[in-house]
Amino acid sequence: MKDSAIQSLAAEIISEARAQGLTIATAESCTGGWIGKALTDISGSSRAYKGSLIAYHNSVKENLLGVPKDTMIEYGAVSEEVAREMAKNCAQVFGVDIAVSVTGIAGPSGGSNEKPVGLVHMAIAHDTNVKHHRYEFRGTGREDIRREAVLAALELLMAEMKG
Amino acid sequence: MKDSAIQSLAAEIISEARAQGLTIATAESCTGGWIGKALTDISGSSRAYKGSLIAYHNSVKENLLGVPKDTMIEYGAVSEEVAREMAKNCAQVFGVDIAVSVTGIAGPSGGSNEKPVGLVHMAIAHDTNVKHHRYEFRGTGREDIRREAVLAALELLMAEMKG
Repeated sequence: MKDSAIQSLAAEIISEARAQGLTIATAESCTGGWIGKALTDISGSSRAYKGSLIAYHNSVKENLLGVPKDTMIEYGAVSEEVAREMAKNCAQVFGVDIAVSVTGIAGPSGGSNEKPVGLVHMAIAHDTNVKHHRYEFRGTGREDIRREAVLAALELLMAEMKG
Repeated sequence: MKDSAIQSLAAEIISEARAQGLTIATAESCTGGWIGKALTDISGSSRAYKGSLIAYHNSVKENLLGVPKDTMIEYGAVSEEVAREMAKNCAQVFGVDIAVSVTGIAGPSGGSNEKPVGLVHMAIAHDTNVKHHRYEFRGTGREDIRREAVLAALELLMAEMKG
């Protein structure tokens, strides 16, 4: 049921972006390409969606998305600061109007008291403005948490375009 | 049924890569992140899978994956030459042992007599060696063709590791 929610929302996003002439890119860590998959499920998506950097390994966040190493060390890969850098740099690198970034802990391992499994930071960059959102998803397991993150990211994109 | 084939194969790839100490990255065009999604469905995948560049728009193939503009113009985005450049440069950019690239026409539009819907070029780069593969998938519709391409790319990865 939730996958059909993803599909409808992805279709609405592509339609809205094309209507407004906006271009989109994504920077995905814990969702691993699922947002890109959802958007490119839609025929005609290439008119609005330019692509994604799946920065799964931390070195990719630094080398390809230009997240400063100091920011990674000081705040950790799953943090507001890194999410903001990812979104801002993704928009620049891909040359798009709007970019959304996702960095989180899908589990089952990798969680801590301070940063539990299900914690996901996202940021959305629109022109020079970058907004941050923090989530703690309660899904049962990796698949569920990733799905909730994909839905949330798509909702952010839609809300941003609706202004 | 095929999605469970994707899932099993992805799990085997992560397991094999970890056993051999190999790192992997992907450069996806028509699959739009689905290969990345499949590999990162697997818990512990970050030990082997570094990430992906979803080069959905042609500008991304040039600007982020370093495919020469002349190659794009001469052979077209869906071609052996572009697939080879994508895989080779992806391996370099991500600093991995093995990279697979996918560029094709998922449809329903975008096909021609010479390059029909279902035509997909892939390349796999392993150290300095780059091999090319050409497919014509007969799936009924975009979803099917993309799924077949994901499976084929995963099979290439597995075969390459098994040597």
